[in-house]
Order: sequence, then C-alpha cells, then structure tokens
Amino acid sequence: MDAGSAASPLPPIPAAEYKSRVERTKELLEAARVDALLVTSEDNYRYLTGFDSPTWVNLTRPRYCVVPRVGEPFLVVPANAAIICERTAPSVPDVRTWIAPNPADDGVSIVVDGLRAFATKHKRVAAELGAESRLTMPVGDFLRMKEMLAPIEIVDGFKLLLSLRMVKSPAEVARIRRICGIVSDAFDALPDALRAGQSELDAGQHFKVDMLRRGAHAVPYVCVSSDRGGYRSINVGPCERTFGAGDLLMLDTGSAFDGYYCDFNRNYVFGRPSGELTGFHQLVWDATEVGLRAVRPGARMCDVYQAMADYLAAHAGKGYLRAKQGRLGHGIGLRMCEPPSFSRIDETEIRAGMTLTLEPSIAFPVPGTNGPEERVVVHEEDILVTETGCEILTRRAPRDLPVVG
Amino acid sequence: MDAGSAASPLPPIPAAEYKSRVERTKELLEAARVDALLVTSEDNYRYLTGFDSPTWVNLTRPRYCVVPRVGEPFLVVPANAAIICERTAPSVPDVRTWIAPNPADDGVSIVVDGLRAFATKHKRVAAELGAESRLTMPVGDFLRMKEMLAPIEIVDGFKLLLSLRMVKSPAEVARIRRICGIVSDAFDALPDALRAGQSELDAGQHFKVDMLRRGAHAVPYVCVSSDRGGYRSINVGPCERTFGAGDLLMLDTGSAFDGYYCDFNRNYVFGRPSGELTGFHQLVWDATEVGLRAVRPGARMCDVYQAMADYLAAHAGKGYLRAKQGRLGHGIGLRMCEPPSFSRIDETEIRAGMTLTLEPSIAFPVPGTNGPEERVVVHEEDILVTETGCEILTRRAPRDLPVVG
Repeated sequence: MDAGSAASPLPPIPAAEYKSRVERTKELLEAARVDALLVTSEDNYRYLTGFDSPTWVNLTRPRYCVVPRVGEPFLVVPANAAIICERTAPSVPDVRTWIAPNPADDGVSIVVDGLRAFATKHKRVAAELGAESRLTMPVGDFLRMKEMLAPIEIVDGFKLLLSLRMVKSPAEVARIRRICGIVSDAFDALPDALRAGQSELDAGQHFKVDMLRRGAHAVPYVCVSSDRGGYRSINVGPCERTFGAGDLLMLDTGSAFDGYYCDFNRNYVFGRPSGELTGFHQLVWDATEVGLRAVRPGARMCDVYQAMADYLAAHAGKGYLRAKQGRLGHGIGLRMCEPPSFSRIDETEIRAGMTLTLEPSIAFPVPGTNGPEERVVVHEEDILVTETGCEILTRRAPRDLPVVG
Repeated sequence: MDAGSAASPLPPIPAAEYKSRVERTKELLEAARVDALLVTSEDNYRYLTGFDSPTWVNLTRPRYCVVPRVGEPFLVVPANAAIICERTAPSVPDVRTWIAPNPADDGVSIVVDGLRAFATKHKRVAAELGAESRLTMPVGDFLRMKEMLAPIEIVDGFKLLLSLRMVKSPAEVARIRRICGIVSDAFDALPDALRAGQSELDAGQHFKVDMLRRGAHAVPYVCVSSDRGGYRSINVGPCERTFGAGDLLMLDTGSAFDGYYCDFNRNYVFGRPSGELTGFHQLVWDATEVGLRAVRPGARMCDVYQAMADYLAAHAGKGYLRAKQGRLGHGIGLRMCEPPSFSRIDETEIRAGMTLTLEPSIAFPVPGTNGPEERVVVHEEDILVTETGCEILTRRAPRDLPVVG
C-alpha cells in the first residue's frame, strides 16, 4: 500500500470538456435571456475552467470567472494566481489580474467593467444566489457591484449551473468511482484497527491517515459517532469518548479524489449486538435496497424518498422516521453534498449519469428506556444512475453489523 | 509516533471564555450603535460559541448565530444540528431549529423574527460583509432577509469580529503553538522521505499523512512547488512533476489543531545548490530576521512590511520584490489567513497576543536567462507578539538550504 501507486492519477479532464461545459452554459444563458454569468465558488469555478489550487482555503483573495452569453469567458484573479490559471485552466486564456489584498478594490472594478461590456442586450447578469449556493466573495463587495451595475439586474445563476452539473461525464464518474473504491477499502480494513478503550479521536485519525495512504487526496469530512446501542448524531466530529462493549460506532466521510467526492458511512458494533440493534441495521440496509430498486431515469427524487420512507415506517417496530434529518440522500460530485435531495419536496427528475447517495436512517428511544432521548442508525451507499436503473459505486456493506473489539 | 499520544487533546476552551467573547461583542455593538450581530461563517461561529463539527463541508444547510447588543444570544440551526450545539456550544442554550433542506425558508424567517425583536433602538443589525469576510449562506436568502428587515439597516460586522479575534487568548495560543510544533517536526523529518524521481504528488501525500500521524487534525492546505533553481508559484497543489538534481522544492501548509491554524513553508534543494540560489534563500531568511526585530506592540503592520521590503530591495542582487504577492505575511488563527496583512497599505497597530506569519519572498529571472519568466523563493515563520517583541512559534528554519536526494 504505497501512496505512490495508490494515488496514481487518472487521465486529466481534457480542455475540450471544459470548453464544452462553457458552450452549454452559453446556450442556457441564451435560453434564460441572461447576458453573462459570474462564478466565484470553488466547485463551479473548477467545473467550468479546471482551476485547481489549495488556495481556496485562503479567504483573503477572491477569484472571479465571467462566462458571457456571446463571446469568450475571462478570469479575474489576484496577480499571484495567474500562474495557477496558466497551469490548470488553459482553456480560458483571458486572465485579468490585480494586486491583492486591496480592500478598496479587490477585483470589483475589473469584474464590473467586464460584465457591463457583455450586458448590452438583456441587461441581466447571473451570480450564485440560489438555495445551497455560496457566493465566494465578500458580500459587501457584491452589494457594491450591484449598485455599480444598475440598471443591469443580477439574477440567480446557480440553478443553471446545477442543471449542467447534475449529470456527470465519464471522466467525472471515474473520479467518483475511484474515491468510492479507496474509501470502501479503508472501511473494510478498519475493524483490524478498532479496539475497546480506543477513543473516537484516535479511530478518526487512523481512518484519515489510512484513506490518504490509499490515495484519497482530501479528507475534510470525517464524522465519528458512538454510543451504547446506537449513536446520537451523524454530523459530529470525533471526541474523547472511548469505545466499550455494546457500542454502535459509525464513521462517515466525504473524501475526494482529484476534486470529486464520495459520501458514505459504515457501522460497527463492539461485542454481540442486541437483537433490536441488529434489526435496526438490517432495516436501514433493506431500505437502501428499496431505494436501489426505485432509482431509475424518469423517477423523481421525492418518489424514491417516499419508497424508502414508507418502507422504514412499515417495518420500524419501536423505531421511527428521523423527520429532523429532512432527507434520505442527495447528489455528490465536486461537492460532498449537492442537489438534488431525496426529500419529500424535491421533484427533480432522475437522469442517467447522476451520482447520488442513498442514506436511510431510523431513530429509536435509548434502549431500555421510554424517555425522549433518542438513538440513531444510518446507512449510506453511493450510486450512479444508469439507463435502466443504477449501479452501486461503493462496496455494498454487509446486511449484518460487523462485530469488532 | 502513535496518533493516540500525538493527538492528545488540550484542555477544552472553557464556557466562560466563550461567554466573555460574547460579552465583549455586546460592548462593541453598543459602541457601534448596532442592535444585533448575525454570524454565519465557520470561524466566527466557532469563535463566539465553540460550535465544532465537520458539517461545514456540507453546504446544503446554513447555520446562524445572533448576538444582541442587549439580551441573550441564540442559534438558528437545522434540526439535525441541535445535538451539535448541545455538545459543543453549551454556553448558548437558546437553540431554534427548522427541518432542512427547505429552499422555501431555510431558517430565514426565524432569523428575521429574532433580529427584528432586538433591532428596536438603533434599527441597525450587522452581518459579515467586509473585506476578507465570507457570508456563509445563500446570498439570495440574504437579499430576501434585507428586504424583510427594512427599514432596519444591515451594516458590516466583520471588522468588529476581527477586532476581537486579532489578539489571541492563552488557550488559542496553545493550539497554534501545538500545530506549529507538529508541523515543524514533520518538516524536519521530511528530507528522509524525499528522493530524486519522486513526484510532487507523492511527496505531498506523504507529508499530509505524516502531519496527521503526528497529531494534526486537519491538513486542508498543502502546496508543493518545485523547479530547477527556484519554483514558479507558492499557491499550487502538487502535480505529477518528478524531482531531479538542481530542483528547489517548497512545501507550504495551513494545517490545524482543534480548529487553529499554522501557516508556514520549508525549502529543500536536490543536490548542491548554485551560489545564487543559496544567496536567495539566505536573503529571505535574513529578511525574516529583519521582520522578527521589527515586530513589537505599537508598530504598524505596514512598518514591518516596509522594513522587510527595504531589506530585500537593498540586498536583492539579480532578484526583485514580488509586487504581485501584495504582502509579506498576515494573521493566523481560526483561519489559515486572517487580517491583518504585512502590506504597504495595512496600518493596523500590532498588539501583544497577535499571532502572525512573516513571509518574505523574492523573485528572479530563470537562472541562466534574461527572459520574462521568473522563479521564486519564499520563506515563512509563525510568531506570537509579546509585550516586548515576538516569539517564534515554528522551529526556525536553517539559514542554509537543506540538501536532499
């Protein structure tokens, strides 16, 4: 298990694919009667241009990409980032720079001038404003841009970007498949490293190291949750709690290979599980089967949600649906969580090429009590929608809880 | 080198410290004639409340914290995050929730109601709008909040938060000191793992793993840059380029322990360096010495910048100041890069308790050419400002380039 071979790169996404994404963006802008799209966030920027740098962690300097309805896109980046554009985003050769940080004008006037030059027909430009978007620039500067651009209007462009991004290309699927494989291997190897008396922190640290050694490039999301007979949350980082007999342990990770994410978890039990706990794990595993059978092109996200929710409700025994979670899965790609959602209200039509997680969960009273405090069991697999149904990208978990410790 | 001992936790930051941060925020709101502060970003949220979860990687669900000028703060989080508040942010017991995702109202109405109830005197509330801020919610929702709140005005609250955050508490310094020590150890051990023929990707992967094994909790920023006689950029991720004789290699990392970041780099040369390259490394090392002597309470950030820039200009030989970088260091803390900046224009007064990086760099023509293409050498150390000057938190690099391979 040498990092060198495990991290062996995939063929790069060709410049032609980035150019085709930009062309499709321009068609959608035309259809929406919008003159240009301003992009600021890491995932959308990378999707359209290939721009790839750890520098997004540094919030001092924003980066802008403008795609016009008619004409050539351009980038506005701090002068020290021009070399990153040259190296990772060669399909967009027009790079405009300023010396940053400059709080008085951190690229704003260059962007406004560029948008104005394009916004001559519909007098509308789009930016990342909609649900689940993050405009990755100071909002004070955005409000200033808005005033400077008036009467040109700024409308949402995030939905348009999502409609492009939801269906993945073969090169994108290859990356998601790779990270799903790496993390499946790490989950399979984990029982050998787990032991009673070990802390959540130590288990989480071991897991991060192991995923990187197997070739993951980034491990920003590692949740570790454990408690007797079921855990309390699925969104918490590891703490100092140590494992003991009867604990149910869950690790969940959003890890990435070449920018693309998996998002799935695995459950382990310390010592022989109670019949009830065994049953709850089988239940969420079986609900995943229901989801796997319901996913196909033409179905809606809410239909698959309902199929899994109905199954959970019908077979829950002492358990109940975790209404507070709000959904039972979602999209994955350049983000660990991206639209659409397997929720009651998301009517997005499923299409071949989408990459999604199925994430059924069940809550139940703390074993041996009838109090309000609850425990949870969640199970998650990542899938690719095919022409006829779906393919599991993760290595399917066993139906019966793996026993460790 | 067991992850268990290396990752041994520091005493938690006590609830009293979070309460005192909130109290100081309230005083600053009073002085600024602002009724309440809305906080949405990971670093500010954690600073005020302790809220700690990997869930910030998931952009589906926003999280809100409201601190009033008079009264008690409250949190607005998705229902599934209430348990995170209970566990990590107990100093703010008022937690209001909604079922997310709900694009029609993802917490917006609860936040607006809460802000309205407080904004009775000055009719002004503050949010993260200013330079270097990131409002961590959909901006479409923010614009809707703005309309719903009118005539209550929204002003910038990021400067106020920065004025609190710039001077670190002993508990914060302990965390930065810990990560600086962990990463210094990893840099010192790195030469044994470097070899000619190895790729930047493999070296970067090894370095991430080693930092985690030594106890770093997060390694989101690892830049690796190498080229003959000097590298081309300091902000790029590792690529497939393999090391050979005459290469200058730089690794730079923003890594974290318990939420707090270091940010520094180290240089290594493959085989015997040219006299010119040796000189450039000594120059940026010496310029750091100039910075170390110039930093003291009462000096301004621009004064220290000027001292380092003047020294570099006076001793540069064939080199020249990298104007495009815009600064020669900055603050560190809950972000890898936070204000203030060692720049020509930043007049912030240095105070005891600030944690900063000194990061002098020099550019020069590609060795053996007079063309426009340039190479770079950068050197960086992290410091704590003391009552009389400063203390180095990193293990000072050697003045002479370490030879490897």
